[in-house]
Amino acid sequence: MNLIKNEVLILLTHQWCDWEGSYAIAVINSFSDYVVKTIAIDHMPKTSMGGIRASVDYSIEEYDNFHNLALVILPGGLSWEENQYEEIALFVKKLKACNILIAAICGATYFLCKHGFLDSVKHTGDSLDYFKGAEGYKGEHLYIPAQVVVDGGIITANETAAVEFAYEIFKLLHVDSEEEMSQWYHNFKNGAV
Amino acid sequence: MNLIKNEVLILLTHQWCDWEGSYAIAVINSFSDYVVKTIAIDHMPKTSMGGIRASVDYSIEEYDNFHNLALVILPGGLSWEENQYEEIALFVKKLKACNILIAAICGATYFLCKHGFLDSVKHTGDSLDYFKGAEGYKGEHLYIPAQVVVDGGIITANETAAVEFAYEIFKLLHVDSEEEMSQWYHNFKNGAV
Repeated sequence: MNLIKNEVLILLTHQWCDWEGSYAIAVINSFSDYVVKTIAIDHMPKTSMGGIRASVDYSIEEYDNFHNLALVILPGGLSWEENQYEEIALFVKKLKACNILIAAICGATYFLCKHGFLDSVKHTGDSLDYFKGAEGYKGEHLYIPAQVVVDGGIITANETAAVEFAYEIFKLLHVDSEEEMSQWYHNFKNGAV
Repeated sequence: MNLIKNEVLILLTHQWCDWEGSYAIAVINSFSDYVVKTIAIDHMPKTSMGGIRASVDYSIEEYDNFHNLALVILPGGLSWEENQYEEIALFVKKLKACNILIAAICGATYFLCKHGFLDSVKHTGDSLDYFKGAEGYKGEHLYIPAQVVVDGGIITANETAAVEFAYEIFKLLHVDSEEEMSQWYHNFKNGAV
């Protein structure tokens, strides 16, 4: 009997975006059989765009719990564009090799694009023009103007799609019954009045 | 010349809700002339529903920057119902006395209700039935089934209304031009495809 809850990681970078992974992690960590942990390039606290100084559970270098890892969320933020984050690219490569789901939104889709991870899967992001700024991008023909796209184990979403992003994550992780998840999506997309 | 940026506080409690104040604080702290700081009943880090362990900038007891304080955000979370949080009620009383704006959502509206702060202002919240569970609630006739309500210096919203909540906060703080704020609301409410 395995008493260890499967993990979901949220990867925090300097000035990570507060809202983009917020629905996903709150529901997963508080109302499902998964536990959410934070990971980053080092153990220094990572402050969000909104001023939330979050502590880091794991550094990428030390992480070795891949056998219990279900999914990694990469929220956007203000530091993806000006940093190469090679160590994060190596981590994503390892996740792909282990067939672990990856969910990226906003600036983090740009990061995946820049490192070639979106060259062979259908994907979305803030705009095709945004991706065209990334040197060597080869996935133009696979870009779909949508709130969220799921393909090849990668979820991509634009910055306004935090609710849709969470819903696709919930479905892939089977966090609840189809009916409950659908109701959740309806409420949070349309309001609960 | 006053070089101190006016503050906006987000009040964190045990298992604070990640998404409810997320849009508001990210935009305010990163793209306006206000700065966002965290406050709590003590200096112990406060972990969100989603597992974000956030450090605390100010304890309620020590806080004395009221002359530079524009607004306090009270996100919901999983600890508002079972705790009285008398020290937070005293803090809210002080905010009211200083005419400082208060923005509460989800469980935090229940808290305001429980302590009588919603007895004389038009307000909303997750449901009227939810408030009826709060002993001594006298504001039933002022309850409005809406995503967000602004009255008497208090913003109230239900848990699905994080975007509307942020928009009302932005307007009260004048974080940007009317046109930019309206465009932001449109994008985040309807998606940016």
